[in-house]
Amino acid sequence: MTQNNTVNRQVLLASRPVGAPTESNFSIAENTIPVAQEGEVLLRTVFLSLDPYMRGRMSAAESYAAPVEIGSPMVGGSVCRVETSLNADFQKGDWVVAFAGWQDYSVSDGKGLVKLPAMQNPSYALGVLGMPGFTGYMGLLDIGQPKAGETVVVAAATGGVGSTVGQVAKIKGCKVVGIAGGPEKCKFAVEELGFDYCLDHYQDNLAEELAKVCVDGIDVYFENVGGKVFDAVLPLLNTQARIPLCGLISQYNLTELPAGPDRSSALMARLLVKRIRLQGFIVFDDYGSQYGEFSQQMSQWVSEGKVKYKEQMVEGLDNAPSAFMGLLEGKNFGKLVVRVGADDMETK
Amino acid sequence: MTQNNTVNRQVLLASRPVGAPTESNFSIAENTIPVAQEGEVLLRTVFLSLDPYMRGRMSAAESYAAPVEIGSPMVGGSVCRVETSLNADFQKGDWVVAFAGWQDYSVSDGKGLVKLPAMQNPSYALGVLGMPGFTGYMGLLDIGQPKAGETVVVAAATGGVGSTVGQVAKIKGCKVVGIAGGPEKCKFAVEELGFDYCLDHYQDNLAEELAKVCVDGIDVYFENVGGKVFDAVLPLLNTQARIPLCGLISQYNLTELPAGPDRSSALMARLLVKRIRLQGFIVFDDYGSQYGEFSQQMSQWVSEGKVKYKEQMVEGLDNAPSAFMGLLEGKNFGKLVVRVGADDMETK
Repeated sequence: MTQNNTVNRQVLLASRPVGAPTESNFSIAENTIPVAQEGEVLLRTVFLSLDPYMRGRMSAAESYAAPVEIGSPMVGGSVCRVETSLNADFQKGDWVVAFAGWQDYSVSDGKGLVKLPAMQNPSYALGVLGMPGFTGYMGLLDIGQPKAGETVVVAAATGGVGSTVGQVAKIKGCKVVGIAGGPEKCKFAVEELGFDYCLDHYQDNLAEELAKVCVDGIDVYFENVGGKVFDAVLPLLNTQARIPLCGLISQYNLTELPAGPDRSSALMARLLVKRIRLQGFIVFDDYGSQYGEFSQQMSQWVSEGKVKYKEQMVEGLDNAPSAFMGLLEGKNFGKLVVRVGADDMETK
Repeated sequence: MTQNNTVNRQVLLASRPVGAPTESNFSIAENTIPVAQEGEVLLRTVFLSLDPYMRGRMSAAESYAAPVEIGSPMVGGSVCRVETSLNADFQKGDWVVAFAGWQDYSVSDGKGLVKLPAMQNPSYALGVLGMPGFTGYMGLLDIGQPKAGETVVVAAATGGVGSTVGQVAKIKGCKVVGIAGGPEKCKFAVEELGFDYCLDHYQDNLAEELAKVCVDGIDVYFENVGGKVFDAVLPLLNTQARIPLCGLISQYNLTELPAGPDRSSALMARLLVKRIRLQGFIVFDDYGSQYGEFSQQMSQWVSEGKVKYKEQMVEGLDNAPSAFMGLLEGKNFGKLVVRVGADDMETK
């Protein structure tokens, strides 16, 4: 079924995944479209962002945000149109960025909605101009503190975060080494995004290859994957290196701690000996007040062609679960977005 | 044999320790006293500092400084008197802070020597007014960024670094929880140093006790020990907590990584979810230019009695190896210093 003006399709969390999510963890519901009350707006989701952090929300374990309740719609950032407005700040037809979740329709009192200016690609507000781009930009610049001539390494190099990190680091005059899954993505990172190198993490000798291209060591490692990439990076980190930490996608589906030995003290010792800064951050919590500055700068870079952006558009809300499962396996190529509905639609 | 003016006693690294150092890793040599050439000074060591980092210098593994060569004198900070000066910047009788190592006499071209003003306790320049105090001060203030009302936890609470951290944190209006080995040290930390609590890490239920006294969680954990203290601290760290990392004394004698599971990815996940900053530092490398500011401030606090300082003075260079071995086991009480020679001595 496609989006229409009589039913509110929702993708619900049916059960909590053990390890990698499967289709059975999701269910599709068809509910009535909610009605906006005085002061509220009815939003229709046009684009839904799929991001790795959503895996954390599917689990009951403590994280930086409350878990999704079983039977509730999956949460997520979205670009929506205002279909009905009983709020003086919004008009029917407005484009807004919302956190409407995996569903066609939602009601908002307007808090937290960000009105979008007229733009060619409103879905960019979920990627290079939204949370992923903002994450890459702030983490790199504020924690990473890249200096011209330094070496910056980032994994998931063609994704929403990684592609921003690498391109901003190039603008700052750094040598940029990406890591991505497969030759096609690596080619894109070098030829389109302008990275100096991009290594395929499916190759067995990642650590050796990384050492070969990082001849002067690594000054900034933007951490969004963890696991074997981090293992390859750690011995190459220079004195006073910086590690902005925004994600650990390789770890999200683990059901138990990896086998020993316990390397946590060795990790600490390395951070000490090399005087390294490792800092976790959640972009809107830590840097929310700087969104305007980011948005202006990044819009300019995108319009000038200094930052390029690749989107993978999935058609239809029904396909969100499988697309999300593929995201956790690195099957996407570019920022993953679901087209939930048409830009324009006759409303009831 | 005591210090005299005919022989230069030296404690040499005889062999590299495997695990905890033993007497057999050290040897005592008696050599001729070196002679200062034009531009140089002859230094006589009066006080020698013993510090945990020296364990790292005994190993061949890569660390933040070159290892001591087998057969060379152990390195270390010292307070010395100038016995002969052929350098216009120094006069016979001057007190200086040097890095003269575990020996009676050494020659310097004057670089890196810091002249001490007349002071009641020149040995304090190896403790509260020297490297350990500076380490506690800068790590706490620059990386820890303590705010009034926050909870600060520090282990080795009565040592040179820990006692500074806790007392400066109290001056900044924080709640301070120390961790130390045994009831005597804990009593001292609370009654003399003014900590709010001090827990004995020899007790089995450290994690529970720590949770009980840190009712509002932990905002700053000053890391100088690692191991089970860190394990107890980690679950209590608040969002946006800071961890200045200057040492891991509990790990220095390990000969292999601890048994599994591998908790390094879980550590990273915790840093991410709680948006924690973990940063290693070596005080003179990272903050050398701020030593003057520190020295002035700390001297004032000490003279006003706002910062108290406990020294454990060991008599005689011969006793340095056993005192150092005890330091790694936490047997010292206060900053460990060796009195190598008398304040005044007839020179040849």
